[in-house]
Amino acid sequence: MAREITGFSNPLVKRVRSLREKKFRKAEGLFLAEGLRILTEAREEGVLPEMLFHAGSAHPLAADLIAAMEAAGGDVIETSPDILAKISGKDNPQAVVGVYRDRLTPLAKLDRAKADIWIVAQSLRDPGNLGTILRTGDAVGAGGLILIDDCVDPFSVESVRASMGALFTQSITQARWGEFTAWLRAGPGELIGTSLKAAQDYQEPRYHGPSFLLVGNEAQGLPETYEAECDLLVKMPMMGKADSLNAAVACAVMAYELLNQQRKR
Amino acid sequence: MAREITGFSNPLVKRVRSLREKKFRKAEGLFLAEGLRILTEAREEGVLPEMLFHAGSAHPLAADLIAAMEAAGGDVIETSPDILAKISGKDNPQAVVGVYRDRLTPLAKLDRAKADIWIVAQSLRDPGNLGTILRTGDAVGAGGLILIDDCVDPFSVESVRASMGALFTQSITQARWGEFTAWLRAGPGELIGTSLKAAQDYQEPRYHGPSFLLVGNEAQGLPETYEAECDLLVKMPMMGKADSLNAAVACAVMAYELLNQQRKR
Repeated sequence: MAREITGFSNPLVKRVRSLREKKFRKAEGLFLAEGLRILTEAREEGVLPEMLFHAGSAHPLAADLIAAMEAAGGDVIETSPDILAKISGKDNPQAVVGVYRDRLTPLAKLDRAKADIWIVAQSLRDPGNLGTILRTGDAVGAGGLILIDDCVDPFSVESVRASMGALFTQSITQARWGEFTAWLRAGPGELIGTSLKAAQDYQEPRYHGPSFLLVGNEAQGLPETYEAECDLLVKMPMMGKADSLNAAVACAVMAYELLNQQRKR
Repeated sequence: MAREITGFSNPLVKRVRSLREKKFRKAEGLFLAEGLRILTEAREEGVLPEMLFHAGSAHPLAADLIAAMEAAGGDVIETSPDILAKISGKDNPQAVVGVYRDRLTPLAKLDRAKADIWIVAQSLRDPGNLGTILRTGDAVGAGGLILIDDCVDPFSVESVRASMGALFTQSITQARWGEFTAWLRAGPGELIGTSLKAAQDYQEPRYHGPSFLLVGNEAQGLPETYEAECDLLVKMPMMGKADSLNAAVACAVMAYELLNQQRKR
């Protein structure tokens, strides 16, 4: 269904704009994704939004999105660049905004045999880090991201943006630590943590997939009991004054080591 | 000199708060750094702020900072937690805020023999990426960061925070591309770029230091003429749908490859 909205005070504009806040995302089970690149990546994964907002863009990728929405009977809303800017918080006349349904995969539905690398993040606080970790997961061919304890909302606008579309290619699972470890130990898999206390350099072990790479909170790192659960605790060389890397960077350096070892097997 | 400020409208409070904006940083040649961890890292590098604001913190690291400032005849200002929060934009009762002099190193003063890895960033737009790249540079023992063309201000509050103190351990240089290449070619060094068009996997070449790792703009990557100047163009394996990594992540994966090759030499 194609329709047009021209008023700032339209209830749908207000409702969509409210999805920038976590409590409304949670209440509706919906989230926002913005920009042709990310929405096109989602479409290529077979994921279309529930609603698509555009401002009459002439870009061929926008036309493709609109055509796909119309073929699927989706809700396409043409509006003014001003209203689109109000929804998206951006001044991009070519912008499109999609309203998507939450994409959480329950732990019980994860197929660990699907991939050799899985990323597990604990109490991650920064939405940019979360999105960047999803993007890295996509790059190394990870199966998905498992969020432990109180991580930042993976469906925030900042996280979706930083993921650059990987939110639609990586599965996302939320679990408590106890649930996760019970599930993990019910099948094959090595849990790998990075720690300042680790004796082993991260390039020393031969890793055997499926590898579950555990990334800790940005400020505190991993709790001791979580480190104790790891099958391997390793450290990256730190040649300078700092004793740690950014969480998304540490995750990527480890994930590429896992991938590189896979490539050489 | 120790003194106390109790009023929000104090001109010094306004002046320091103005350093959150680039134009005032530029006009004054000063910038802000916040938090005991970062200020302590700076002090351990022998760098003290011009002014230190605190709110009567009882933390031993705060006491160490105040003692070092007083021994050096620096300006220590005690204020209320509210005013400190106004300056720093944070609600941390243990916070300290330092006002530091700009730390730019002219290209002509860089000693390339000092380190085997140097990071060169071109038109970087995100202050978090810039700070994260500095932090990674510290971790891999890089000599410093060279900023080409119009990069985001390395002295922004976000960049300083993301660097976690590496702003004080890494040299920072600003240069135009032509100046940089003239300087680069006047001595030894390989310029290494990452590119989607590269035929070579990033683990294939044997790198010979000093390595100058060139990181492109987040959205556009490197301009073609810049890629053409590179001695080596390499690519990271991308196993998923995305065709690129976050700029700070790509930089870290490459930088650790350089470090790992160094470690095995």
